[in-house]
Amino acid sequence: MRATVIHAPHDIRVEEVPDPRIQTSTDAVVRVLRACICGSDLWAYRGESPRQPGQRIGHEFLGIVEETGPEVRGLAKGDLVVAPFVWSDGTCDFCAEGLTTSCPQGGFWGSVGSDGGQGEAVRVPFADGTLVKLPADAASDDHLLTALLALSDVMGTGHHAAIGAGVTPGSTVAVVGDGAVGLCGVLAAKRLGAERIIALGRHQARTDIAKLFGATHVVAERGEAAVDAVRELTRGQGAHAVIEAVGTEQSMRTAVDITRDGGAIGYVGVPHGSGTGLDLGVMFDRNIALRGGVAPVRTYIPELLADILDGTIDPSPVFDLTVSVEGVPDGYRAMDERTALKVLVKP
Amino acid sequence: MRATVIHAPHDIRVEEVPDPRIQTSTDAVVRVLRACICGSDLWAYRGESPRQPGQRIGHEFLGIVEETGPEVRGLAKGDLVVAPFVWSDGTCDFCAEGLTTSCPQGGFWGSVGSDGGQGEAVRVPFADGTLVKLPADAASDDHLLTALLALSDVMGTGHHAAIGAGVTPGSTVAVVGDGAVGLCGVLAAKRLGAERIIALGRHQARTDIAKLFGATHVVAERGEAAVDAVRELTRGQGAHAVIEAVGTEQSMRTAVDITRDGGAIGYVGVPHGSGTGLDLGVMFDRNIALRGGVAPVRTYIPELLADILDGTIDPSPVFDLTVSVEGVPDGYRAMDERTALKVLVKP
Repeated sequence: MRATVIHAPHDIRVEEVPDPRIQTSTDAVVRVLRACICGSDLWAYRGESPRQPGQRIGHEFLGIVEETGPEVRGLAKGDLVVAPFVWSDGTCDFCAEGLTTSCPQGGFWGSVGSDGGQGEAVRVPFADGTLVKLPADAASDDHLLTALLALSDVMGTGHHAAIGAGVTPGSTVAVVGDGAVGLCGVLAAKRLGAERIIALGRHQARTDIAKLFGATHVVAERGEAAVDAVRELTRGQGAHAVIEAVGTEQSMRTAVDITRDGGAIGYVGVPHGSGTGLDLGVMFDRNIALRGGVAPVRTYIPELLADILDGTIDPSPVFDLTVSVEGVPDGYRAMDERTALKVLVKP
Repeated sequence: MRATVIHAPHDIRVEEVPDPRIQTSTDAVVRVLRACICGSDLWAYRGESPRQPGQRIGHEFLGIVEETGPEVRGLAKGDLVVAPFVWSDGTCDFCAEGLTTSCPQGGFWGSVGSDGGQGEAVRVPFADGTLVKLPADAASDDHLLTALLALSDVMGTGHHAAIGAGVTPGSTVAVVGDGAVGLCGVLAAKRLGAERIIALGRHQARTDIAKLFGATHVVAERGEAAVDAVRELTRGQGAHAVIEAVGTEQSMRTAVDITRDGGAIGYVGVPHGSGTGLDLGVMFDRNIALRGGVAPVRTYIPELLADILDGTIDPSPVFDLTVSVEGVPDGYRAMDERTALKVLVKP
């Protein structure tokens, strides 16, 4: 089959690789219908997250079950399924509690020896624990399929940030980061009943999506000026709930500075840089909480799926460029140069 | 009157100072019946928290109202009252929400121009917002009075840590720090229904109090060995709820290492050192939350007071040395040399 392989920073190729096959009785093989490129894939692309030459890449996909191992009980050939960005066994203590990302048997697509999502098919470990079945008729609905793909990462990650930030009905929320996750954070905050949602961002195409998703205010300033603008919108106090969806020291500093005393930062930007950007003395004096991390999106899929199916939320506008598998390297370039927000892959 | 004055590191003296008097219509003057020395006072004593020569010191006291300003409504001369370690106006947004430590008109005893608790009397700003009335007959009960003094800081701070750590009925809690706050954290965790409480500490006099307060396990090891011991007690997973009551980088590192994935650290140790001790990458991967800060003890006093009065909790064992006001400098020496856990001052 054809799949995306990373050889070195900025050297991403689409190549012929062995077809995936059942290796363990709990495996399934999924033929990919939709995949996409994540902002966090760019860290590998840019060489900031090390990869071994030849690793696969891509951790977001949905598709059709093509084959199942003998112990797979809940899925059958022909089922339409979505995969979260981490596989998990579905049976351990952590999976039972919903923290699927801490499953001792869990792992990431594209890690050494595993398939990535940006290809024609994927071997899925622990298929029963990992995959979530989608309504069969969605397979013929192009728009819906794109919206459902967001369940594999960005929608669930935005939701995790909103939960971590403590968004409740009536609260004031600020969102740091205008990438797909930040925008899904806006959508998640709106879904949870936030009254005011302040999106920080300078790119109008992105802030327009933020408004579409429920942002009531946009702050285009940067650094200190952005902090001042948020404080002006919040009677000098800051936002109860702050979503941090970037992962740099600077973005974390901004998040702390715009959080109201007693509020919380829900952080889902993968931390980069040697420092944390956290001034613990300031957080201590102001009782600012920090909650978040890698999102257990597997746990969130059922409730978010229901809301996509009934039209309550539609995250599909985060995808603004579509490529074939052969076009994946172009997709990386477009996202690296910020000419695309999030690239959809249709094999 | 006689009061404690700090002139320089290790130079604490008891001196004659002007009697406090009403300066603002919302003030009260309180004659001190009980005060004490806090672990955090040692940072000033050791020169690690800067003080101007001549500042007063001490932020924990209870006593009898001697005089009230014309706008004080809820208190009268002769009332027995306890003061939290921060004064607050009782009327602002933050006070209304219970985050009295973020009151814009709030302040700390012993800050420049204000009285400290380690003296014969104190001028209390915003007396209605700050002070909490105690039952009059407690004034003649020496043991009860000592227990009630813990409401001014350590008991409420331990409770804040337990709340921040997310202690719930049945949870497993680990406590880093065997000072008075850490021990009160044990007591608070027990009160909130924790099933297993692991106290980290090497000093038997202190761990004996931890056991008296509800600790089910004591870990006397340090560093990596302590982490291993806690993990061994928790099926390798760590504790759901971790109380951090020290405030050093090392103690924070230990707290992170012994927290279960998806758990929380409730931190109330005043942060010291240039770094945070936090590895954000580890916290991210494991979804460890950080909540806490300066404790709004004013808010907690009513509920904790009720439990002291009915005998549910008794924090008085944290006081293990008693001095007069003239003996305060000896008290600092004893705590600095760790021959005393917490020093009670009876003027």
